[in-house]
Amino acid sequence: MEIFNLGNFKLECGITLPNAVISYKTHGTLNAEKDNAILFPCFLGGVPEALESYIGEGRPLDPTKYFIVLPGNFGNSISSSPSNTASPFEKGAFPEVLIADDINAQYKLLTELWGITELQLVLGWSVGALQTFEMATRYPSFVKRAASIAGAPRPSPWTQLWLKSIIEETITSNEHYNGGFYQNASLLQGSLRRQAHLTALTLPPIGFYREGQECWKNIGFSSFEDSIIRFWEAFWLPQDPGDLVTQAKKARLADPARLAGGDIEKALARITAKFAVVAFTGDNMFPPAEGKIDASRVANCSFTEITSIYGHLATFGMASEDIVAIDNVLANLLKD
Amino acid sequence: MEIFNLGNFKLECGITLPNAVISYKTHGTLNAEKDNAILFPCFLGGVPEALESYIGEGRPLDPTKYFIVLPGNFGNSISSSPSNTASPFEKGAFPEVLIADDINAQYKLLTELWGITELQLVLGWSVGALQTFEMATRYPSFVKRAASIAGAPRPSPWTQLWLKSIIEETITSNEHYNGGFYQNASLLQGSLRRQAHLTALTLPPIGFYREGQECWKNIGFSSFEDSIIRFWEAFWLPQDPGDLVTQAKKARLADPARLAGGDIEKALARITAKFAVVAFTGDNMFPPAEGKIDASRVANCSFTEITSIYGHLATFGMASEDIVAIDNVLANLLKD
Repeated sequence: MEIFNLGNFKLECGITLPNAVISYKTHGTLNAEKDNAILFPCFLGGVPEALESYIGEGRPLDPTKYFIVLPGNFGNSISSSPSNTASPFEKGAFPEVLIADDINAQYKLLTELWGITELQLVLGWSVGALQTFEMATRYPSFVKRAASIAGAPRPSPWTQLWLKSIIEETITSNEHYNGGFYQNASLLQGSLRRQAHLTALTLPPIGFYREGQECWKNIGFSSFEDSIIRFWEAFWLPQDPGDLVTQAKKARLADPARLAGGDIEKALARITAKFAVVAFTGDNMFPPAEGKIDASRVANCSFTEITSIYGHLATFGMASEDIVAIDNVLANLLKD
Repeated sequence: MEIFNLGNFKLECGITLPNAVISYKTHGTLNAEKDNAILFPCFLGGVPEALESYIGEGRPLDPTKYFIVLPGNFGNSISSSPSNTASPFEKGAFPEVLIADDINAQYKLLTELWGITELQLVLGWSVGALQTFEMATRYPSFVKRAASIAGAPRPSPWTQLWLKSIIEETITSNEHYNGGFYQNASLLQGSLRRQAHLTALTLPPIGFYREGQECWKNIGFSSFEDSIIRFWEAFWLPQDPGDLVTQAKKARLADPARLAGGDIEKALARITAKFAVVAFTGDNMFPPAEGKIDASRVANCSFTEITSIYGHLATFGMASEDIVAIDNVLANLLKD
């Protein structure tokens, strides 16, 4: 994992964050023309490594052909975050960051560190897709192609409520949270476990746990309870609670319409990239019915619904047929 | 609201609860033959009055024809509950109660207070449906007809996780909960508000809050946030937190299979009532696909899926067409 120093970085909220950094990882080599770059931002609570299962020789995201950049989001505990920032911006005093700030930082990384002037593709899923929409809207001429996978330009009211009630409030209501100035993240482990239970409840599609169906069997768990602990609790427990609150609030406030006076249709009309919106059947977070509307607002955009038993979790690459379906969309997008 | 004194009431867990009571309300008059009684148990967090919108002259639940009994569940703050029971069973020391205990108490009320030997109909929705299945399984010859509306014989793994994570853990994790021995229910208002946000998230069907759809408009709210506060917070805030934990755990442990050595098919085969299972499209809690399986396990059972935009909330009678659809099922069930 590399670190890019942003220096005194002016955030959208008006605050300048001194010594701001973002993490990143790359695959492949930037060519002499600097025209083979792909940007692949990350999902909430994730580390860029989680996206590497999409990258492979002979596949659409081919590192022998493309220079693939996996940036880390503000709040991910490696990029500037409440947990790693110096006073006066440490912990609960960390300033408000927006998806637009992530994108401004990534733009700075790509243009200043490498002199890239156009991306072949920007893609992401979930919060990575929020970033994809923001990049394609904010820097239209910088983005040749874009793919939003299980995402949207901004979270729906349901998804905003999800972020607020399941991630933010579950943590901030803990008596040890102390406005973000907790003594030790482990004091908040109860909140992270409850968050695990609530995400186990709301992220898989309805029917996932149904008797006779028991989809946790397909992905290597020995019982329903085993999947709750070894998948969900194991995912959230290592994370810093305050950093998660920052990431969730950032996702909740995502809105490229800020670029067009609050008019989402006008904002999405700025996009010049060849665009693909991909949604999964049963994804409560970004339902296909909503993805179809998003796609209709982008000039040159395809819409694909992938039938999956994993809903929003499909992007974790749990079923080989889902991976093939995503690869097909990306191959089609990249072919001309 | 009337109170029926159960005396020293032996619970399924083996504890005898002294001076146990259940609340009830009736509509109509028991005839001389004592063969016109209908039992209509209540949902979680609800009061029997909430069911009165189903009762009306000329409708299936006609009080000029039937004697309709609306019992209150253990844990509803009027029937024996943590909040109203004397030492040594007060508050956090209230014994474990099961749906089977509710049903044993209701059976005692119906048989001992009025001498009823057979019910024309037992019906309920959600936790009321758990009770309907328990009554029809536990006392088969007592139940001539039964209707489970948005319910099941026992909660699915998803619904068990819902009860545990959204109702139980949101309350018991509060630092003021103190194992149920909190000084004042208002100390826990933050938990009840978060519970409101989480139920707002998980009980309506996906799409309920969608931009352009905004179903809260149909039921008299001025914005998304207005519906969260004036519908959801207003529903949970007046309730006693410990009583809710008792109700949720009781629902989570519901299982008529206990009557047949854990075999749910064998348990449901005990039912002799003419049975109707009704499910609503988009009900996450009791999905139609699962209701169909439940119905297939009962000898003389119809299955009806009602298309509604309200999912599990349809039973609140939010749409007149849903009320008509339910009335049709009940009319059909009662006609012979």
